[in-house]
Amino acid sequence: MSTVDKQLETVRATIADEVPNRISISDVKYEGPELVIYTRDPREFASDGDLIRRLASKLRKRITVRPDPEVLSPADQAREEISDVIPEEAGVTDLDFHADTGEVVIEAQKPGIVIGRHGATLREITQKVGWTPEVVRTPPIESSTVQNVRNFLKQEREDRRDILERVGRQIHREPMSDDEWVRITTLGCCREVGRAAFILSTPDTRILVDCGDKPGAEDEMPYLHIPEGLGSGATSIDAVVLTHAHLDHSAFVPLLFEHGYDGPIYCTEPTRDLMGLLTLDYIDAASKEGRTQPYDSEMVREAIKHTVPIEYGDVTDIAPDVKLTLHNAGHILGSAVSHFHIGDGLYNVAFSGDIHYDDTRLFDGAVNDFPRVETLVLESTYGGRNDYQTDQGDSERDLKRVINETYERDGTVLVPAFAVGRSQEIMLVLEEAMRNGDIPEMPVYLDGMIWEATAIHTTYPEYLRDDLRDRIFDEDENPFLADQFEHVDGGDDEREAVADGEPCIVLSTSGMVTGGPITSWLEHLGPDPDSSLVFVDYQAQGTLGRRIQNGQNEIPVGGGSGRSNTVSMEMNVETVDGFSGHADRQGLENFVRTMNPRPEKVLCVHGDESATQDLSSGLYHEFNMRTFAPQNLETFRFL
Amino acid sequence: MSTVDKQLETVRATIADEVPNRISISDVKYEGPELVIYTRDPREFASDGDLIRRLASKLRKRITVRPDPEVLSPADQAREEISDVIPEEAGVTDLDFHADTGEVVIEAQKPGIVIGRHGATLREITQKVGWTPEVVRTPPIESSTVQNVRNFLKQEREDRRDILERVGRQIHREPMSDDEWVRITTLGCCREVGRAAFILSTPDTRILVDCGDKPGAEDEMPYLHIPEGLGSGATSIDAVVLTHAHLDHSAFVPLLFEHGYDGPIYCTEPTRDLMGLLTLDYIDAASKEGRTQPYDSEMVREAIKHTVPIEYGDVTDIAPDVKLTLHNAGHILGSAVSHFHIGDGLYNVAFSGDIHYDDTRLFDGAVNDFPRVETLVLESTYGGRNDYQTDQGDSERDLKRVINETYERDGTVLVPAFAVGRSQEIMLVLEEAMRNGDIPEMPVYLDGMIWEATAIHTTYPEYLRDDLRDRIFDEDENPFLADQFEHVDGGDDEREAVADGEPCIVLSTSGMVTGGPITSWLEHLGPDPDSSLVFVDYQAQGTLGRRIQNGQNEIPVGGGSGRSNTVSMEMNVETVDGFSGHADRQGLENFVRTMNPRPEKVLCVHGDESATQDLSSGLYHEFNMRTFAPQNLETFRFL
Ligand SMILES: [Zn+2]
Ligand SMILES: [Zn+2]
Ligand SMILES: [Zn+2]
Ligand SMILES: [Zn+2]
Ligand SMILES: [Zn+2]
Repeated sequence: MSTVDKQLETVRATIADEVPNRISISDVKYEGPELVIYTRDPREFASDGDLIRRLASKLRKRITVRPDPEVLSPADQAREEISDVIPEEAGVTDLDFHADTGEVVIEAQKPGIVIGRHGATLREITQKVGWTPEVVRTPPIESSTVQNVRNFLKQEREDRRDILERVGRQIHREPMSDDEWVRITTLGCCREVGRAAFILSTPDTRILVDCGDKPGAEDEMPYLHIPEGLGSGATSIDAVVLTHAHLDHSAFVPLLFEHGYDGPIYCTEPTRDLMGLLTLDYIDAASKEGRTQPYDSEMVREAIKHTVPIEYGDVTDIAPDVKLTLHNAGHILGSAVSHFHIGDGLYNVAFSGDIHYDDTRLFDGAVNDFPRVETLVLESTYGGRNDYQTDQGDSERDLKRVINETYERDGTVLVPAFAVGRSQEIMLVLEEAMRNGDIPEMPVYLDGMIWEATAIHTTYPEYLRDDLRDRIFDEDENPFLADQFEHVDGGDDEREAVADGEPCIVLSTSGMVTGGPITSWLEHLGPDPDSSLVFVDYQAQGTLGRRIQNGQNEIPVGGGSGRSNTVSMEMNVETVDGFSGHADRQGLENFVRTMNPRPEKVLCVHGDESATQDLSSGLYHEFNMRTFAPQNLETFRFL
Repeated sequence: MSTVDKQLETVRATIADEVPNRISISDVKYEGPELVIYTRDPREFASDGDLIRRLASKLRKRITVRPDPEVLSPADQAREEISDVIPEEAGVTDLDFHADTGEVVIEAQKPGIVIGRHGATLREITQKVGWTPEVVRTPPIESSTVQNVRNFLKQEREDRRDILERVGRQIHREPMSDDEWVRITTLGCCREVGRAAFILSTPDTRILVDCGDKPGAEDEMPYLHIPEGLGSGATSIDAVVLTHAHLDHSAFVPLLFEHGYDGPIYCTEPTRDLMGLLTLDYIDAASKEGRTQPYDSEMVREAIKHTVPIEYGDVTDIAPDVKLTLHNAGHILGSAVSHFHIGDGLYNVAFSGDIHYDDTRLFDGAVNDFPRVETLVLESTYGGRNDYQTDQGDSERDLKRVINETYERDGTVLVPAFAVGRSQEIMLVLEEAMRNGDIPEMPVYLDGMIWEATAIHTTYPEYLRDDLRDRIFDEDENPFLADQFEHVDGGDDEREAVADGEPCIVLSTSGMVTGGPITSWLEHLGPDPDSSLVFVDYQAQGTLGRRIQNGQNEIPVGGGSGRSNTVSMEMNVETVDGFSGHADRQGLENFVRTMNPRPEKVLCVHGDESATQDLSSGLYHEFNMRTFAPQNLETFRFL
């Protein structure tokens, strides 16, 4: 008998002790980080509101209770009974019954009403029909990504349950080693912005944190092939943790499955969907630019299938000796500061991922409140000694000034923006500015995946700021549905017409001008001195965006279709930096300053060489902690 | 055609250009780091004294010329002709003809005379008989180790040639990577004394430097199993370099072959023989102490078969991007400071191994004169801020005082000593002291492998100090043959008789009292307050030696044969530290101070935590270089 099976025996015995005799337990197994209890008496189980909580605290595990399939009421009958229980205003749009697990997935416009106060409505459903309800939100703006992911997961349900059971057994295996150490290996993202990839390892466990590309340097992948990377095979990795969906963190996650990885990916639910959107676009762009696709779209589906979504604040076992907790990072939708608790109080490491320390219109500022963190791996994008950003209020005034000036010249304002990240922030600024009359009403064209990304934002309002969340639920108040937002879907002819037409604002990907529709826009608008190009986010070294910022005035356009021209850059080029998704130097320092307790060691990564070194030396002098500006390919040992 | 074969084509063309037409070349191939040229005209080749040198400088390779087997004169005839050429006083003891390679191995008491001035006699031999002479020394003291190694290598000649050809092709393969980096991974020996094991890696090459055990902590092996160790298989290592034969550097080298390693071991010839001696004894001791043998003696033979011996100062290609040069380390016979030149002027790393900076009776002080070293990995055994040793003159006086005092009490002087290392130094001190009348003439018993190790020393006098080398060749002057030295070979009865008999001196292994005959000696002598136990070398933490030094007065004896008693320790315990094989703090600083140029970075290893940290901080403050006291399991990147 394997150690996991032995351990499950003990768990079963404990459950038998705790659960009253009248409730019969038919099976107990692991599914990913959760312990699933099958019962022949789901109604009785549900009637004791505290039983699950007691079991969870006794077993120190996350627990899900499911009815034994044999005791379920028929789906048709259950459908009617459920409809009777859920109030009308919940806006149920779909009920999906899965007889194999006794789960019913309820898609509703207002999930909170389906759940009820402290889960009362859900318990009532279980008591009535036996089925276990699971609630998802109906996207307020239709999102093909969300729909595709949900359909795909529904279709792959069985496969997914096998994966989760395997992952569950892996997580709950017996630790093998008596040694105690914690190490971080840098496979990328050191003294550079991009190709984030770190291995966090203990004697028992190896976790890959992020696996991204390097914008502007397509051939510089993370060093996956070195022995301490995937050198001894992708199966040497126990888990992948994805801090957020930006490609410099996620682009090569699907590739892992091509290399034979078959384990879990832990991230938030929006990160999963955004990763799907962005990586599919990533391989599509590679094809269009005549590069070899780094992997097939099948691998993106594998990645989605292997994702175990977790919510902010949930402490989750991801290995026998590692607990993971994700916290809001304030950077993009679903972005997470990832906190690892290792051993039983042995050591704690937090990876900041990309963070924004102050609140923005979209998000609360990054969480930095952990019971313990000995080592912090901190992004340093704006860690340079002079990297202080304008206050967002000033930035908004500045942006509105540029828009007004351009409008008066009859020009067009072109904003290169990441589909996911600042686009939605800028949309909120523009919507309010027009509403308040700070800038004239004019169309705002959204090109590339910005519209789709916005739809995903509205699907997960619990990841947004409170007031914004509330507005989204009120259709008349949803700022993303304002009339002026136009989705560009007519291709290059539409772009040319827009560019030659009335004054307007264009938000287009890619955010660093490395490809995508922004190139078309530049072809049409570049030579127009009345129009303005406005950078609102970080431009990495080696990208065209950075070169334009630095004054390059001949720019290549065309591309995919074989043309390879240049246009002369006559546009008014402006940088309005307060909208960055990244904390500035002050924000990074504040993030560390306000931690309590502060970490003993900080590794400054995800920044140019000078930014990481400046931040490292700044934190050392200010807080008297051990700080490092690692290089790629190094291994640091803690403990 | 492989890249090696293409490259060999070019080499052949160059040789054809350089060699006069009258000399016909029948084959050119790699054997280990050497290029072997087979010729049908060995005599003509040998007659041009400068031809090989010209080829070597043109091809930048080490070159060996061998006769095509078809043109050899018959062995019987050659034997006579060779005997005619070599002067009588060379003392030839064996001639061994190998028709497959056209080599004749000449074993002689005075190899220098066989070689002749600038190799004149050797060339004369080739001209006369066609065979290529190779000269080895007849051990002045019979050594079963040397004899076994030589017989074994003779018997495995064919296998060995296959190995060397394979190694040669590996060395001369085309480098694959455009990346440039140099890394050191610590698998052991950091903040501890023992289990030396480092991986030096470039994008193309991974070299394991040393692979030893940890005295006093048998279960603490080097971290070979981690991914960046042998995690992706022992064949991921291209070469092993062994700095010297002490078990804390060599014990697990044979184990590599059990793990599937099949590549070369680079070290000096005496290191090879001593490694054979010490590792065989190591597994033997494990059995005797009831531990599992870490590997079979067959693996020791594999290690010997895979050894490519190199001489001090010879620059040797060991990988497409790495040249190795060994230099005298002054620590034990054949010990080497190992200098790695990486890329074409890209980077240089030196591993000190264990060093003695000042001259001793046995050896010149360690070499620290390299054209370039950017990073030095430096031993720190006595790196602590107070680790200053007594001057050897004072130590000798001190040792003589203890001997005289003990003699006057009618006691016995017991010296725990490494078989290889300080034993021979102490023998030289004792021989001179008795000759000069500083101490009374009395027997000096050599127990454990000391006698055999001494025989190996006399086989390789070119690794000893000049004056000692000269004395060894003169039988009447050979200090190791002095009458008072007695080889203990009668077992425990003999020991008891000696211990109960007249005053005498006993040198016995193991040097840190972790096992071996020293235990018997302590059983007999421990309770005798008139006798003295004298420590002359470093006692690692966790060893019985260290505990006795620290005052432990109940000591376990017996052991192997099932008994497990203790005796009370009444002996006079003394530490005379000036004989250490290791540089003291001053010596380590001097080693660095007198380097020119000095390294940019120093990694302080092979010392207790405080010793490495003290040395690291001392070197930083004194020389303003970047210094580190690494932990095990870390990876440092240079470049
Ligand atoms: Zn790969
Ligand atoms: Zn990001
Ligand atoms: Zn990033
Ligand atoms: Zn040594
Ligand atoms: Zn050593």
